Amino acid sequence: MSLVIVGSVAFDTIRTPWGDRERIVGGSGTYCSLAASYFTRPRVVGVVGRDFPRKTLAQLKARGVDLEGLKIKAGKTFHWEGRYEEDPNRRTTLRTDLNVFADFRPEVPARYRNARIVYLANLNPEHHGFVLGQFKKPALVAMDTIRLWIESKRAALLRELGRTDIFFANDEEARLITGETNLVAAGQALLRLGPALILLKKGEHGALVFGRDFVFGVLAHPCEHVIDPTGAGDSFAGGFLGYLDKAGGLAPKEVRRAAVYGSVLASFAIEDFGIGRFLTLDRGLVEARFRQFRRLTHF
Amino acid sequence: MSLVIVGSVAFDTIRTPWGDRERIVGGSGTYCSLAASYFTRPRVVGVVGRDFPRKTLAQLKARGVDLEGLKIKAGKTFHWEGRYEEDPNRRTTLRTDLNVFADFRPEVPARYRNARIVYLANLNPEHHGFVLGQFKKPALVAMDTIRLWIESKRAALLRELGRTDIFFANDEEARLITGETNLVAAGQALLRLGPALILLKKGEHGALVFGRDFVFGVLAHPCEHVIDPTGAGDSFAGGFLGYLDKAGGLAPKEVRRAAVYGSVLASFAIEDFGIGRFLTLDRGLVEARFRQFRRLTHF
Repeated sequence: MSLVIVGSVAFDTIRTPWGDRERIVGGSGTYCSLAASYFTRPRVVGVVGRDFPRKTLAQLKARGVDLEGLKIKAGKTFHWEGRYEEDPNRRTTLRTDLNVFADFRPEVPARYRNARIVYLANLNPEHHGFVLGQFKKPALVAMDTIRLWIESKRAALLRELGRTDIFFANDEEARLITGETNLVAAGQALLRLGPALILLKKGEHGALVFGRDFVFGVLAHPCEHVIDPTGAGDSFAGGFLGYLDKAGGLAPKEVRRAAVYGSVLASFAIEDFGIGRFLTLDRGLVEARFRQFRRLTHF
Repeated sequence: MSLVIVGSVAFDTIRTPWGDRERIVGGSGTYCSLAASYFTRPRVVGVVGRDFPRKTLAQLKARGVDLEGLKIKAGKTFHWEGRYEEDPNRRTTLRTDLNVFADFRPEVPARYRNARIVYLANLNPEHHGFVLGQFKKPALVAMDTIRLWIESKRAALLRELGRTDIFFANDEEARLITGETNLVAAGQALLRLGPALILLKKGEHGALVFGRDFVFGVLAHPCEHVIDPTGAGDSFAGGFLGYLDKAGGLAPKEVRRAAVYGSVLASFAIEDFGIGRFLTLDRGLVEARFRQFRRLTHF
C-alpha cells in the first residue's frame, strides 16, 4: 500500500461572485493528498517556498500525509489566481506565478521508490520520464494534464498517455485531446491512446469511467451552492487513487467504488474555500456520503 | 391504468452535420406515446392535417396507441424545422408552421375523461384550464413547457405549475424559470412552485429527479454517436409516465425506476432520425437496456 503524488503545493487567490480569498493554501498535490488520506498514507513529491505556512504542513502530517518528498526552497511558493463566474464551471486564470515551481525537477526520496501507484498531477509531460525513472516498478501510473500541455506539448503528452494506466481528464481536456465533441466517443478515443482506465470528469454532472470492456457513471453529489470549485478534480483523483491503493486491485467492482469515493471527496472540496472542508472532515462523514450516493443512484 | 397525452403530432425537418431529413414524422405527442406504449396503452389528444400519412397512424395503433383523441382536420400538419450543430445539445429552430395546430382547442373524448394521468406536452399554459376541465379527477397532472411560454406566458405558466404534480424541464428551461444557475438549486426552486416531482433533463448528462424529501439521478445511456436528438425529452416523459401508469403509485422506488425507463426510452429515440427506432424496438430490448443501466450506475 503506497501512493506517491507528484504535484503542486501552492497558494491560490480565488475570486467568486460571493466572495474572495487571498493566498489561501491550494495546489493539486495538496487537494489530492488530503482526499487520499481518508484511505491511505499518501506521499507527496513537490516544492514550496519558505513563505509556505508551517501550520499547514503540520495539518497535512496530522492527516497522515507523508511530506518527506516536499522540498522547502529559498523563494516564493507557486501562486495561482483565478476567477469563477456565477456558473462555477466557467473559470478564468488571472495570474500564474510559478516561483519555486519554475525550475522544479522532482526528486523522489529513496523510501518512495517502490511505490505501487504513482500519480503525476498536471506535470509537464516532458518531465514524466525523469520522474518515473526514479521509481522501481509501479503497478499503476496515473496522470492528468492541463490545457497548457495539451496545446504546447502535444507530442510528449500523447507519448506519455501510451505508458499510463489511468488518465484523468475533464470534459474540455478530453475534447481537446481527441477532437471528439461527444464525451463517450472522446472517452473511447482516449482509451485507444493507451490507458486502461479513463476518468472523464464532468463537474456538476459527475464523471464517466471508461475501461476496456465497461463504462461506469457516477453523479456529483447534489450541491445547491458551490463555494469554491478549485481542487475538485484533484480531490476526485485523490479519493479515487487513495481508495484503489487501499483496495489493492483494479477489479471493476473496486474501480466503481473508487470512482464514487472520488466524487464523494470532490463534493466536500467544493463546499468551502480552499482545503478548509478537509481539515474538519472525518472518515465517518466520508462513509455517510458514500452511502448517500447509493440512495442517489440505485434503483 | 390510463394515460392521456395532449401534444403535437407533427412533421419535422431535421438538419444535422451528418445528414438531413425532410418532413419526417415527429411531435411531442408522437414520441411520448410511442415511448409510453412499452408499458401502457397511451391515449393521444392532438390534431393533424389531411397530409398526415395514414401509414403512421396505423403504426401507432399497432403499437397500442389509442388515437381516438387525434383529430384529422382540413389543412396541413404542424411542421417544425431545426438544425443541430456538431454538439447536438445546440439546436436552432429554422422555421415553425403551426398550420392546423394554430387554432387547436383540444377536445377530450368521453372515453378519456376518467384518465388517471394527464400529460400536457408543451401546451400554451393559458389553455391548460380548458383541457384539464374536461377530465373528471386525474390522480396525476404532468406538464412540460418550452422557452416560448416561459418568456411570453410567465404568469400563466407559474399558475399552472401550482396545480401540477409532475413537471418536466430541461436545464435551460429550469434556469429560465427560476433564475438559478445551479441545477440543484433550480430543481429545489421548481419544487417550491408546486409540483411534487421535478424531472430535470440534462441531455447527455441524464436527469435529476427532485421530490419532497429525495433527490435521484439517472445517467444517459452512453451513446457514441447521437443521430437525432429530436424527441428525446418527449420520449423520456413517455417512458417515465408510461411506467408510472403501469406501476400504479408514486412511491420513491417506482419513481426511480420510472426515471430510468425515461432515460432508456430517450436513449433509443436519439439513435435514429425521427421515430424510426421505436418502430423496430420491442419490449425485450427496452428491458435489456434497463438492466444495462444497473451495470452503468450501481456499485
